[in-house]
Amino acid sequence: MIKKLINEIVKKNAPIVVGLDPMLSYVPAFLLEDAVARLGETPEAAADAVYEYNRQLIDAIADLVPAVKPQIAMYEQFGIPGLVCYEKTVKYAKEKGLIVIADVKRGDIGSTSAAYATAHLGKITVGSNSFRPFESDFATVNPYLGTDGIKPFVDACNENDKGIFILVKTSNPSSGEFQDRFIDGRPLYEHVADKVNEWGAASMDGDYSNVGAVVGATYPEQGERLRKLMRKTYILVPGYGAQGGRGKDLKHFFNKDGLGAIVNSSRGIIAAYKQEEYKKFGEKGFADAARAAVLAMKKDIGENI
Amino acid sequence: MIKKLINEIVKKNAPIVVGLDPMLSYVPAFLLEDAVARLGETPEAAADAVYEYNRQLIDAIADLVPAVKPQIAMYEQFGIPGLVCYEKTVKYAKEKGLIVIADVKRGDIGSTSAAYATAHLGKITVGSNSFRPFESDFATVNPYLGTDGIKPFVDACNENDKGIFILVKTSNPSSGEFQDRFIDGRPLYEHVADKVNEWGAASMDGDYSNVGAVVGATYPEQGERLRKLMRKTYILVPGYGAQGGRGKDLKHFFNKDGLGAIVNSSRGIIAAYKQEEYKKFGEKGFADAARAAVLAMKKDIGENI
Repeated sequence: MIKKLINEIVKKNAPIVVGLDPMLSYVPAFLLEDAVARLGETPEAAADAVYEYNRQLIDAIADLVPAVKPQIAMYEQFGIPGLVCYEKTVKYAKEKGLIVIADVKRGDIGSTSAAYATAHLGKITVGSNSFRPFESDFATVNPYLGTDGIKPFVDACNENDKGIFILVKTSNPSSGEFQDRFIDGRPLYEHVADKVNEWGAASMDGDYSNVGAVVGATYPEQGERLRKLMRKTYILVPGYGAQGGRGKDLKHFFNKDGLGAIVNSSRGIIAAYKQEEYKKFGEKGFADAARAAVLAMKKDIGENI
Repeated sequence: MIKKLINEIVKKNAPIVVGLDPMLSYVPAFLLEDAVARLGETPEAAADAVYEYNRQLIDAIADLVPAVKPQIAMYEQFGIPGLVCYEKTVKYAKEKGLIVIADVKRGDIGSTSAAYATAHLGKITVGSNSFRPFESDFATVNPYLGTDGIKPFVDACNENDKGIFILVKTSNPSSGEFQDRFIDGRPLYEHVADKVNEWGAASMDGDYSNVGAVVGATYPEQGERLRKLMRKTYILVPGYGAQGGRGKDLKHFFNKDGLGAIVNSSRGIIAAYKQEEYKKFGEKGFADAARAAVLAMKKDIGENI
């Protein structure tokens, strides 16, 4: 699957993924009002508005970027209607030719991790029929439980031609509390990186592994170090834009061939219409504002790698 | 919420939680056959059979134990029908007076963790209405992202009188890969325990905090050490039974007053009818077998703490 992602990145000349993290406050008021008029002040209405928001965003950016990354928490918070919206969003994005990175940050042990892998990357069998529950292409995974928690995901990658991104050094301010602590002279995140290499060796797909890593744009020095440490690992880079990361911080997340990383922006794209720079599009032009923000991000990153 | 859990533990004289982790292979064949006859070989049929399984299990054990712990991965693997079954299971357990510990192991940053906390412990507002998406009482949480990831859950605990259990030392064989690594002379899990104390101080509820910890029964020595290190922390102890933990391993997870820990068993209870010891109940007697297994577990733990 990483080969497919790389092909799409090259084809669209955009090592960019748009995060579909629809906080309700991002959704233009007119979409929510329309949904409430039809469905009342219900979670169903919120989910309906979010789906319409996503659908128009996807239409506006599908020719520009290789992938989207829905953050499942933003859907889970609306309960079942929210998860139905999540499922529909994944399907719609794939119909539009986008690769879907499910930002689920799951991680558990043995059979439980296997069940999560089935949910997001695999298929479930009932009698003689098989079904793909939430058919994403990649999922993000938490490493805290060790190999027991990761191996079922790697197996699912190999069985279904899928991929994962394992949290190594996250973009948030407190990520260092545990991740930066030194063990035998090296920070924990480097030990996790060693394991990512080891796990990834079991799922090579061309020059890179289907087992990638998450390293925040907000930590460019660590990014540089981790880039060298995990040579065959694709790096998913959150934290660009609203969280503070900029194109110039990203250079060292990439290899010299311009590959090796894919940068995520969520709020900076999907809520661009709320920023001073894109206010001219107005609320109704939220999708066009998102498109303009993607083009600006493409330029910013293109000039820096 | 921890006070309520302790009250129920004392009332029922059972520091025990039953894990509702319904692998499809645990569900008695006759339940699945019945569901398939009505709904075909579909995820809906699987979810229907799982719900019926859970319902009968809950009926059989509700007077014996204070809590159940559904493992959401086992539901998520069936997609939306599975999550509907999860929601119904949580509701049914609560109707029967049980406390529900959502084993979701979620954890992300800032607003994303807040969305997960809303989903499982809080409420979502749409216009002038509020809704509780998956209304559990506790959730399990992953600490790898640090305070940013935890604080929204602690806030949700305080706002909604709920609780969490943070992964400290998990029960699986490879949990030591990162958790046991030494930092400044102490294993990572002890540093996590320090943070659990710090986070927990912001949500005290009587003698204990609403912020608990997960420590596997399979690591009794670490359990003893962690018990002393986290004096006001309730410990959720997985790994009893099928994973190898026994009553005699559990003594030091408890304080001298017999409080401080709640021990989970999943497969050992819900699939008891498959064990040699409970075979006499037969497949149709799966719920009675589960009840007998709970009584045996109560005795084993009661004799050892």
